[in-house]
Amino acid sequence: MIDRLIEKIDRTGNPSVVGLDPTYEMIPEKIKKEMLGLYGKTPKAVAEMFIAFNKGLIDSLYDVVPAVKPQIAMYEKYGVEGIRAYIETINYAKEKEMIVIGDIKRGDIASTAAAYAAHLEGVYIEGEWFDLWNTDAVTLNPYMGFDAIEPFIKPCNERDKGIFVLVKTSNPSSRELQELKVGEKSLWVYPWLFEETAKLVRKWGKLAMGNKRYSKVGAVVGATYGDIGKKLRKIMKHTFFLVPGYGAQGGKAADVRDFFDKDGRGCVVNSSRGIIAAYQKDSRYGDDNFGDAARVAALDMKNDIRG
Amino acid sequence: MIDRLIEKIDRTGNPSVVGLDPTYEMIPEKIKKEMLGLYGKTPKAVAEMFIAFNKGLIDSLYDVVPAVKPQIAMYEKYGVEGIRAYIETINYAKEKEMIVIGDIKRGDIASTAAAYAAHLEGVYIEGEWFDLWNTDAVTLNPYMGFDAIEPFIKPCNERDKGIFVLVKTSNPSSRELQELKVGEKSLWVYPWLFEETAKLVRKWGKLAMGNKRYSKVGAVVGATYGDIGKKLRKIMKHTFFLVPGYGAQGGKAADVRDFFDKDGRGCVVNSSRGIIAAYQKDSRYGDDNFGDAARVAALDMKNDIRG
Repeated sequence: MIDRLIEKIDRTGNPSVVGLDPTYEMIPEKIKKEMLGLYGKTPKAVAEMFIAFNKGLIDSLYDVVPAVKPQIAMYEKYGVEGIRAYIETINYAKEKEMIVIGDIKRGDIASTAAAYAAHLEGVYIEGEWFDLWNTDAVTLNPYMGFDAIEPFIKPCNERDKGIFVLVKTSNPSSRELQELKVGEKSLWVYPWLFEETAKLVRKWGKLAMGNKRYSKVGAVVGATYGDIGKKLRKIMKHTFFLVPGYGAQGGKAADVRDFFDKDGRGCVVNSSRGIIAAYQKDSRYGDDNFGDAARVAALDMKNDIRG
Repeated sequence: MIDRLIEKIDRTGNPSVVGLDPTYEMIPEKIKKEMLGLYGKTPKAVAEMFIAFNKGLIDSLYDVVPAVKPQIAMYEKYGVEGIRAYIETINYAKEKEMIVIGDIKRGDIASTAAAYAAHLEGVYIEGEWFDLWNTDAVTLNPYMGFDAIEPFIKPCNERDKGIFVLVKTSNPSSRELQELKVGEKSLWVYPWLFEETAKLVRKWGKLAMGNKRYSKVGAVVGATYGDIGKKLRKIMKHTFFLVPGYGAQGGKAADVRDFFDKDGRGCVVNSSRGIIAAYQKDSRYGDDNFGDAARVAALDMKNDIRG
């Protein structure tokens, strides 16, 4: 997956990923009315809204953006129907040959993590195989250590899948644990907890190397902490970075510069609201043009990052 | 929720919770055959197996066990149909007046955590309210700090819900992050990371106190680390402990003793496989008696913990 992602980034010239994180408020009125008319005020109506919205976005983005990252929470909010919308979104993006990163941030003990690994490896039922989630990669939480990661290594190697482990997130309270000073002093400075996580991710990454310098075990590193980018890039030389926080979360292109390697690779930047809800911020666009607005915003972002 | 849990533990005299974590291998042959016959080799068949199995277990347990804890990963493995089985299990347990702790271990930035909070607060669609998940409490991951917790505080206070935040887990690799030495030396000893998490949970707990000494913000503390029980109980005097790892994961009653307060309260111990798959370990029971076997195992566990 990581080699395919790198290829696709090279081909599109665009090291970015669009977060397909719809909310009810983002849905164009026309789609909203249609689905409420068909399904009433129900979770099914919202699920169909999300599917229609996402399909429109994917149609407008698939040739200029290499990957999408649906945040499962936005779908999970709407129960079974929401989960169905999440999966239909993934399947549609894959039909359009986009790479799909499921932002699930799961993390649990070994036997439970093995069940979650179905997101990457599917499931066998009496000898028949079902790829029910169909994502190319997922995000994972490291709090429980390698037990939470290990079951995902096999599909990374055997099914060309990938994972991105949380190292440093961009939210304000991330400092409460991630910026604790830990371990042994080095030149009188204690390392931060997230640096220890980075070292673990580096170690785990050796278990699933791709062919293009980078491991299939990547890291989530927040964009609003650009000053620590160099440090993390130095610890994790062969780790691909997934960087949320661009745009709506306050990150700017300058903040992500240090995450790239000297060849301008090794990093993909996520924007969600700034792309998918772009039509609501610009009066030139109406309900019918939400896809066009997203495409323009995605190309603007590409130019911003490359510049 | 925490007050109701304490009441129910007092009434049943049983400070334990049964983990409804079914696997395909645990399903009695009779149920398996019936569902494969009705639905073929499909995820729907497995979902129906899980529902039938869980209903049988709940029927046998609801008057002697105060709460169940379905692990969502076991259901998520089977996609949309699996999620439906998770929700039907919750609804059935609640019909039988059991308290339901959804073991979801979610954790994300504020706007995303707010979407996950639907597990406790339901969702509004055009003025109509849907409680699609219907759990009384959920487990959460603290790696991102308070941002990941805060959206759950409101349903704790306004809808009598609860949360259990991971502090120290019982899996071997939990030490990789949770046992890092952090912060300032105290009497020449550095605290462990999980002690810092415990202090955060204590602080967060003040935002949602119940009426019976304990907060609606609880902690997940692994049973196999009983030697640190006293330490954690001392840090978190008003925090209710949810303790996995009893039975199949290797914990014993002696390991959980220190988690209880002087009145024998403040803690609930989880067992999953040891209860729900008890019928497979004892030749006195056959396929038809999986519920009886679970009930006997649950009563044995109760006596073990109370002894």
